[in-house]
Amino acid sequence: MRSKWWGWGDPDTRYPEQMLPRTLAYLESLGIRFTEPRDEPQPPALPPTALTETDREALAAVCEIGTGEEERLVHSLGKSYLDLLSAWKGELERVTDAVAYPRAAREVATLLRVAAAHGVAIVPFGGGTSVLGGVSPVRGVHYAALTVDLRRLNRVLEVDEDSGLVRVESGIAGPDLEAALADHGLTLGHYPQSFHFSTLGGWIATRSAGHASGTYGRMENLVQALTVITPAGEVKTTEAPARSTGPELKHLLLGSEGRLGIVVEAVIRAHPAPEVTAGRGFLLPSFPQALDRCRGMIRGGIRPATVRVSNTEETRALMASRGLKSQDAGSFVLLEFRGSAERVPEEMDRAIAHWTEGRVWDLGGEAASGWEEEYYRAPYLRDELLARGLFVETLETATSWSNLETLYGGVKEALEEAFRAGGTPGAVLCHLSHAYRDGASLYFTLLTTRTPGEERTQWEAVKTAATETLLDLGGTLSHHHGIGMDHRRWMEREHGPVGIRALRALKGALDPKGIMNPGKAWEDSI
Amino acid sequence: MRSKWWGWGDPDTRYPEQMLPRTLAYLESLGIRFTEPRDEPQPPALPPTALTETDREALAAVCEIGTGEEERLVHSLGKSYLDLLSAWKGELERVTDAVAYPRAAREVATLLRVAAAHGVAIVPFGGGTSVLGGVSPVRGVHYAALTVDLRRLNRVLEVDEDSGLVRVESGIAGPDLEAALADHGLTLGHYPQSFHFSTLGGWIATRSAGHASGTYGRMENLVQALTVITPAGEVKTTEAPARSTGPELKHLLLGSEGRLGIVVEAVIRAHPAPEVTAGRGFLLPSFPQALDRCRGMIRGGIRPATVRVSNTEETRALMASRGLKSQDAGSFVLLEFRGSAERVPEEMDRAIAHWTEGRVWDLGGEAASGWEEEYYRAPYLRDELLARGLFVETLETATSWSNLETLYGGVKEALEEAFRAGGTPGAVLCHLSHAYRDGASLYFTLLTTRTPGEERTQWEAVKTAATETLLDLGGTLSHHHGIGMDHRRWMEREHGPVGIRALRALKGALDPKGIMNPGKAWEDSI
Repeated sequence: MRSKWWGWGDPDTRYPEQMLPRTLAYLESLGIRFTEPRDEPQPPALPPTALTETDREALAAVCEIGTGEEERLVHSLGKSYLDLLSAWKGELERVTDAVAYPRAAREVATLLRVAAAHGVAIVPFGGGTSVLGGVSPVRGVHYAALTVDLRRLNRVLEVDEDSGLVRVESGIAGPDLEAALADHGLTLGHYPQSFHFSTLGGWIATRSAGHASGTYGRMENLVQALTVITPAGEVKTTEAPARSTGPELKHLLLGSEGRLGIVVEAVIRAHPAPEVTAGRGFLLPSFPQALDRCRGMIRGGIRPATVRVSNTEETRALMASRGLKSQDAGSFVLLEFRGSAERVPEEMDRAIAHWTEGRVWDLGGEAASGWEEEYYRAPYLRDELLARGLFVETLETATSWSNLETLYGGVKEALEEAFRAGGTPGAVLCHLSHAYRDGASLYFTLLTTRTPGEERTQWEAVKTAATETLLDLGGTLSHHHGIGMDHRRWMEREHGPVGIRALRALKGALDPKGIMNPGKAWEDSI
Repeated sequence: MRSKWWGWGDPDTRYPEQMLPRTLAYLESLGIRFTEPRDEPQPPALPPTALTETDREALAAVCEIGTGEEERLVHSLGKSYLDLLSAWKGELERVTDAVAYPRAAREVATLLRVAAAHGVAIVPFGGGTSVLGGVSPVRGVHYAALTVDLRRLNRVLEVDEDSGLVRVESGIAGPDLEAALADHGLTLGHYPQSFHFSTLGGWIATRSAGHASGTYGRMENLVQALTVITPAGEVKTTEAPARSTGPELKHLLLGSEGRLGIVVEAVIRAHPAPEVTAGRGFLLPSFPQALDRCRGMIRGGIRPATVRVSNTEETRALMASRGLKSQDAGSFVLLEFRGSAERVPEEMDRAIAHWTEGRVWDLGGEAASGWEEEYYRAPYLRDELLARGLFVETLETATSWSNLETLYGGVKEALEEAFRAGGTPGAVLCHLSHAYRDGASLYFTLLTTRTPGEERTQWEAVKTAATETLLDLGGTLSHHHGIGMDHRRWMEREHGPVGIRALRALKGALDPKGIMNPGKAWEDSI
């Protein structure tokens, strides 16, 4: 399914009408001011394509090339705050010059060859759900940008049920992939919030993580092998459950965000489809207590598929949206187990025993029902808030268990200070979203009133305050969103100068003309 | 503990005296011919060091530098068949020119700077247990080779019990590391066969796997972050439980076998020390049946720490060595669970129920007792066999479950054909050594009579036959031994020409003068 160009997802789906006024009322109670809702943006006039007719013809000899206004528009924006802001303002910073629709890996290879020869930049595009500017059509030093839409590369090529290995083309979207696996009693179990729109290739290119990672792992665990077309040729990593054959190239390509090549195919590790899914909610007096309890659960060997531990602001927002009284609530905890009918109840019993010691409210299975739908609906709320003059951004990081509370406190304080300095009251919602043996991720949602005419400056101030603080406090620059354009300036802090030198060397070797996705992930030179 | 120079491990430990004659008798029953045991080799005369006095002084200003005969000898050989063969023949192909003993990461950095300036190759050395020539003092284009012994970099720097994270210097050996962790109720759970001698840095540099990987994971799962000194400077990867910040440099350095730099420090992920360990043995009618049963166990979600499934030849060798009648035995299966007192018995019950359907002998816990000691003693048997004129080599690979039996059959046949062609009867022992959700590893032990005067040619023929076959059949070049010198020629088949191009670019960026461990892992140019 194609997303609407100016906001999230399905044009016919909206944030539930009965929940919206409650959520708005809660945010107002925090001092956040709204405007009246604006009508959805109208498509702006686009500049003409820069692609020469000669080059268009050369590319069109490879596969279908579109230069229509509508398709150029929908391929020019991702789903970052800055992307959506530019949609609402009707001021697109960049517009792609054409869209290619390859149907086979060899067409991708030819496209890259033609583009390199003609000085055209390549922007890979799966579901277009990047929240960091990952699909923005930056030309770099090239005269035009060609977006390569991979959604027609969507075949399931081979299913090995004995091993749970499935060879798939990269352009397949979440629901199509899961439907194909279900026919074989399998699941990938990868459920990012963008699941309905994003593609396997996009998940690989960004090292994505889904909410059920506790059972199924992150994308890097779910990919056994992959095929990437680079301008220097094809890299096809060996199919092996594990190996010790030098540096692992798979991990260079995972997360490469289209800078080294285009993922065209992968062998994914599917799990047996779960026989049962069981959720449960708990309410604890405070977020720090709940984080510590969560740590104990994971270190003690209880690993739910999904774990979410919300801070007080988010807990109250969740409860308010459901029409529940929330003024005393501390921290809402959601667990979900997926697996065999024999094991899931055992594990749930262990989890309940662990969580219900002391001052804890066991909210039962009821409190967890419907949470996944809410999870997929949350981005539609953003559109409602954007329409009402709000600044809405999310960011996420991860650190060790022992550093989690410090990181949380520091980032929250930095954000609140940034809101104060900007003169607009704001709120910082946060939850632990993925738990590992050695640590966990924190997912922040930032809300405040937009400063008309100063939106970009406002964003810069808030984003910089949060990012510098989280890096200072030992958090990683991104846990699962990736880098794109928005995080790029901090990549050297994440990897160090020698690390960046290594990335540039790789880029030089695999993409000597620098056509691949310019302006993303890391700076090409100093 | 330092290993003896001409063979495996502790000079005072031998393969158990009561088992040796039984094992020899079994091998004789397969048609393998022995000589009388030779006395252990005497240290050969070494060529003088090539290191100039000026350069020795420049290096000695950094840290202790040794050029004595004994220390040069023990640092010139690893534990590959070719290494030990050269020890028995008294003909060392290469001798290191000096040994450096840095005590701090900054000393390693200075050593690399001085070596690069003076044209000296660097050979990192941990426990020296490489079975593939990984520590061979190859000079490459340089005039001398300096072995850098990292065993004095052995401090535990920081323990974060809450997160199970431990910062350690890389030169620490297995037993010292586990002893330090045990003080905090933790374990790394990494038990390669070289455990008593090899070091954390060596495990990282080779992407090592230990027998308990089912519970604890491989080295790549156990390292959260690492610090590597490259000639271009330090790379220190972020401490994060997981991240999506571009290509993952950690996975470039893991397995880099000293070609890009020297691992000086790591943050490792420790587990709670197991409360209980429980083993069990089963006997199945045939190896294919046992492999399939093992697949069903893992796919069904039962994950022992250790799984070993032996082919018939190995099963009979194991039983013979214990003095048991073995003529009808098909496949011996060993399972071991490690973990909490609550979970281990539950999992063992599940495993027993799974394994004991049909024609299976449950040998009980007794059959598993002492297996770990035998595992650590097996390399001492190799010394006994080498002393008696045998060719003894091991090799290992991995593939998907659906391809496992085909790969096994093909490699076994290729080896038997190579023995036939060489005119010496031989035996191919094999076991599944590590099981993953999507596949498993196969570990082969090859035994035949050495062809005097033609040993190298004999090895080439056998090694080439096995390796070409396993690559043809979709196996990986190495599951946990690494590449070193012995596998290097096949690296391009494993990674493809574009993959090798990427590795060379990395090498050029991080080690511009090419001083790091020449001749290992991959060819530097065509």
